[in-house]
Amino acid sequence: MERSKSDIQVGKPAIYEAAEKLSNWGRWGPDDQIGTLNFITPEDIVAASGLIRRGKTFALGLPLDEKLQSGLFGGRWNPIHTMLATGTDAVAGNQDETVGLRYADDAINLPCQCSTQWDALAHIFLDDKMYNGYDATLVDTNGAGKNGIENTVSRMVGRGVLLDVARHKGVDSLDDGYAITNADLDATAAAHGVEIRRGDFVIVRTGQQERCLAQGDWGTYAGGDAPGLAFETCYWIHEKEIAAICADTWGCEVRPNETEEANQPWHWVVIPAIGITMGEIFFLKDLAADCAADGVYEFFFCGPPLNLPGGCGSPINPQAIK
Amino acid sequence: MERSKSDIQVGKPAIYEAAEKLSNWGRWGPDDQIGTLNFITPEDIVAASGLIRRGKTFALGLPLDEKLQSGLFGGRWNPIHTMLATGTDAVAGNQDETVGLRYADDAINLPCQCSTQWDALAHIFLDDKMYNGYDATLVDTNGAGKNGIENTVSRMVGRGVLLDVARHKGVDSLDDGYAITNADLDATAAAHGVEIRRGDFVIVRTGQQERCLAQGDWGTYAGGDAPGLAFETCYWIHEKEIAAICADTWGCEVRPNETEEANQPWHWVVIPAIGITMGEIFFLKDLAADCAADGVYEFFFCGPPLNLPGGCGSPINPQAIK
Amino acid sequence: MERSKSDIQVGKPAIYEAAEKLSNWGRWGPDDQIGTLNFITPEDIVAASGLIRRGKTFALGLPLDEKLQSGLFGGRWNPIHTMLATGTDAVAGNQDETVGLRYADDAINLPCQCSTQWDALAHIFLDDKMYNGYDATLVDTNGAGKNGIENTVSRMVGRGVLLDVARHKGVDSLDDGYAITNADLDATAAAHGVEIRRGDFVIVRTGQQERCLAQGDWGTYAGGDAPGLAFETCYWIHEKEIAAICADTWGCEVRPNETEEANQPWHWVVIPAIGITMGEIFFLKDLAADCAADGVYEFFFCGPPLNLPGGCGSPINPQAIK
Amino acid sequence: MERSKSDIQVGKPAIYEAAEKLSNWGRWGPDDQIGTLNFITPEDIVAASGLIRRGKTFALGLPLDEKLQSGLFGGRWNPIHTMLATGTDAVAGNQDETVGLRYADDAINLPCQCSTQWDALAHIFLDDKMYNGYDATLVDTNGAGKNGIENTVSRMVGRGVLLDVARHKGVDSLDDGYAITNADLDATAAAHGVEIRRGDFVIVRTGQQERCLAQGDWGTYAGGDAPGLAFETCYWIHEKEIAAICADTWGCEVRPNETEEANQPWHWVVIPAIGITMGEIFFLKDLAADCAADGVYEFFFCGPPLNLPGGCGSPINPQAIK
Repeated sequence: MERSKSDIQVGKPAIYEAAEKLSNWGRWGPDDQIGTLNFITPEDIVAASGLIRRGKTFALGLPLDEKLQSGLFGGRWNPIHTMLATGTDAVAGNQDETVGLRYADDAINLPCQCSTQWDALAHIFLDDKMYNGYDATLVDTNGAGKNGIENTVSRMVGRGVLLDVARHKGVDSLDDGYAITNADLDATAAAHGVEIRRGDFVIVRTGQQERCLAQGDWGTYAGGDAPGLAFETCYWIHEKEIAAICADTWGCEVRPNETEEANQPWHWVVIPAIGITMGEIFFLKDLAADCAADGVYEFFFCGPPLNLPGGCGSPINPQAIK
Repeated sequence: MERSKSDIQVGKPAIYEAAEKLSNWGRWGPDDQIGTLNFITPEDIVAASGLIRRGKTFALGLPLDEKLQSGLFGGRWNPIHTMLATGTDAVAGNQDETVGLRYADDAINLPCQCSTQWDALAHIFLDDKMYNGYDATLVDTNGAGKNGIENTVSRMVGRGVLLDVARHKGVDSLDDGYAITNADLDATAAAHGVEIRRGDFVIVRTGQQERCLAQGDWGTYAGGDAPGLAFETCYWIHEKEIAAICADTWGCEVRPNETEEANQPWHWVVIPAIGITMGEIFFLKDLAADCAADGVYEFFFCGPPLNLPGGCGSPINPQAIK
Repeated sequence: MERSKSDIQVGKPAIYEAAEKLSNWGRWGPDDQIGTLNFITPEDIVAASGLIRRGKTFALGLPLDEKLQSGLFGGRWNPIHTMLATGTDAVAGNQDETVGLRYADDAINLPCQCSTQWDALAHIFLDDKMYNGYDATLVDTNGAGKNGIENTVSRMVGRGVLLDVARHKGVDSLDDGYAITNADLDATAAAHGVEIRRGDFVIVRTGQQERCLAQGDWGTYAGGDAPGLAFETCYWIHEKEIAAICADTWGCEVRPNETEEANQPWHWVVIPAIGITMGEIFFLKDLAADCAADGVYEFFFCGPPLNLPGGCGSPINPQAIK
Repeated sequence: MERSKSDIQVGKPAIYEAAEKLSNWGRWGPDDQIGTLNFITPEDIVAASGLIRRGKTFALGLPLDEKLQSGLFGGRWNPIHTMLATGTDAVAGNQDETVGLRYADDAINLPCQCSTQWDALAHIFLDDKMYNGYDATLVDTNGAGKNGIENTVSRMVGRGVLLDVARHKGVDSLDDGYAITNADLDATAAAHGVEIRRGDFVIVRTGQQERCLAQGDWGTYAGGDAPGLAFETCYWIHEKEIAAICADTWGCEVRPNETEEANQPWHWVVIPAIGITMGEIFFLKDLAADCAADGVYEFFFCGPPLNLPGGCGSPINPQAIK
């Protein structure tokens, strides 16, 4: 079923063709709400535990004060961290009579899609439907009536694989607009000496985020031009039967998109049709350096979302453990 | 150094005595900000991976719509989940021209201490100081200048042990006001056939939360009477050199407290003096049932906090993997 | 056109009959977005200024810490007031180097409909339409594309009239479920010696709010049973050509409603068909006492909404000036 | 007591000298919390009502979607407007069974100081004190224990005067860094033919905001360079016994400040010592054009704050009525 990039004229027809060919609707029953996470078996998790060899853990969550949302998309804002009680209150003696305990409390207000995140299967629609044929109107101001992130609370565990495409290509960062092809993915895996298996959490590194961090300026990271997966990779994802696809970019797929007929054409297919959980804005710098150093690009992966009923996504701090 | 419950007359003198005797200030250097998480070695993590035998994962995070904050403490509120884009907007055609992609987005606004959570070492002060001798005034409206949760982003991984005190005592739930003693902890571990080791994540089950869930009413769960750890357990915690202490209750320690001289007297010692990370409001029902069924009370534990710089805590969905 | 209460069998047919008979769609042109506020002329404002005789001002906004939302309706929450900078920070010296100014800042997070408020004409729909025939789908997660509160930013000024129905009836508070009839309104005005005129801000007092305040318990104020306007008053409102209708209750109209066929049947008519701006949860205690004391039930009214583009309402603190 | 600009070497000594000379502490008793608003008498309000001659109202609140906070100060954010229910939900039929009413609801989350606002007397401290000698530590994470905005809920009514300094100077906007002197204020009033009286709400127009609006870019409006009041105007304010001072800029006073020894030196004096309520970010374009057209620079002013207990400020939409 694999198709090379050159074969596909990206546009509405290609989107609908791929959505039809790659559909997993019904594959895990009419009531399924987790899609490709079903590929992960208990045996896979046990096997993945064997990848914990050095006891070294990498946190893949970007600090929640990174000001990366700069107004490009959908009214999202940067995380707002406020304090409900402070040490300065405590030392002023303001808590002694009223609380009898000196303490600090805080709160966090953030869009689920503003930093390192899972997108739930309720995040993207194809026409009037979402994954597994549920009506899109089930996602209203009360949240996602189906395909919410809460269905995955115990399912984000398994084998992780890093595909460091930038390093394989010999660059610090792929250029904005560079479309990562199926051939790129395969060549990177081969160069890393790592096999992509059914049920994997596949994490793609473009280097774009680290370029922004090095510059000290996010620029148009949130919704502007970026390197990323070519549309054709929806076929690769389907063929490989991976559990999740993640990247260090804002939206995984290449921007400008390969067509002007649709915004984020790859999204139209991979979430609603394939039902794959997507991870975005992963912080990969330290993990990638370690993998380059020891030549081991597989690891135990544990990236639990918050248990947010009806959530269309969740902020996360995924862990890669080697 | 262990002391039995009957030995201690809980009150201000006992608090200051324990804080002095059990202090870990300086133990891991003057710049340390993670306290007892230092007990966990890479070897411990590798060893803990061997506890993944069946590939079964338990999510310990309570759904973030549980209305458990009912006004008892500190102006906390229940999680507020709002939608920034919906499937109903999409189906109405409102996104087609403006976005070119049909999607749903959302946001979450919650106190870090309102549901299943880690408390950072910046959460509790003893007089004018916090763990490792840092000034409490370093925690102001800008967040925690020291001892923030961001220091632990890759450190919440290791061996987990469940001490199901309620089940060991043969009850669905311990009574409110029941103080779990050092002897209770030891007897429970012995009955479970599990050893408490240096660097463990120890999770105590009282059954109180499940009682509330069964009643369909949180009542005064958030700050009212509860079963929980006796003050003397601060000695047990210190002696065992565990990494973290967690419970299914709002505040880990018994309420009413064992003294009226201080609110949460055990907190005065364990966070500021010992420097132990505390987990609260863990959802333990399914994990406890499984442990009772297979008789195995140890597991791989992975409970990453959000990467919240200056955070005095973090909402979490910890994973217990057997 | 006036009808007495006994004439109307409240239900879907009566709703649609009233909506058709009382419709103001097109009355002020196809682009109108403020409805009955159009009744107020500059001359009315000048005339109303003559009601300022004693220089006494009454604030009609309830304190935003009143915990009146208790979960009955639509996921609204009580106002959340958080501090971004504090005097305790200042005195601790934390601002001296970084800011060079000792200050306190704060933030407020509240549903527009959680306390004393205007409802915009975008707040209620009849079938698929809102006031003046605009499609309801123009109100999406981006806000109200039409009929938003921002259209009224300079229009909430004119003659105010208090109709203290409770006092006229000789009770501290009307009973929950008491339906205020057209006859009640007319008799109250007559007893007050006040005339209802075109373009008035008419404010109805039931006493229910003061009953809650006196009890120290809001109970089911927010969405439960309440005294309030009978359905038939939609005819009275239309005939009188008033600018706005306000009350001291959560929802102006009587609850339980006069029918089980629709929730808030009066709302179905007055906002979408008549296009009247509605004010709810007004604090009337002090104003009512003053009016009773001096026998003057008319005053200059100034109740500006926040300039919230696309807002379906606004928190307010209206001023009655005598 | 008036001093000309050239007399004052702005710096810490001048600040403390002015704070001592101009202090109103105790002037209205030891329990006063509203400062110069006390200057307004009922007679002033009655007299001001006579300024309503044409029935024309100007809304001085900037739209709450103006993205003017760009990260310069104190972690403030721009207003966040979210929807709790929408017309798209309604038309999708999602409310018919559950609510029985088709409606839209919304919420607003904003710093009190992020747009058109009153600053409460609790907003600024001089050393460890605030207005009337209250300890600054009374303002903690629970809000302002004294001098909160709730004390003013019915006091923001009286005579308003516009001093259009930019127009008087013959420019669209004063230059950033231009310090408006006492002589400028007096000359502007004289040119306008308007007298400044005790108890006035004095509103100063620099034109800077309109320059930003015309440019379509706020630039460094929020905390960067700006035209504004010279330090010496604290003497003018005190001498004139005005009730409030307002401007179309972010912070009323000139920036860069006239000294590097203190940030916002004029603030150090006028709020804590004089106890004057300050209005910032007023939208003056339409009002100023009207005043220029009819030559009348006085009007009835009504600018009620939200009733926010413990608030250090309030978003507002003040009304100028001519």
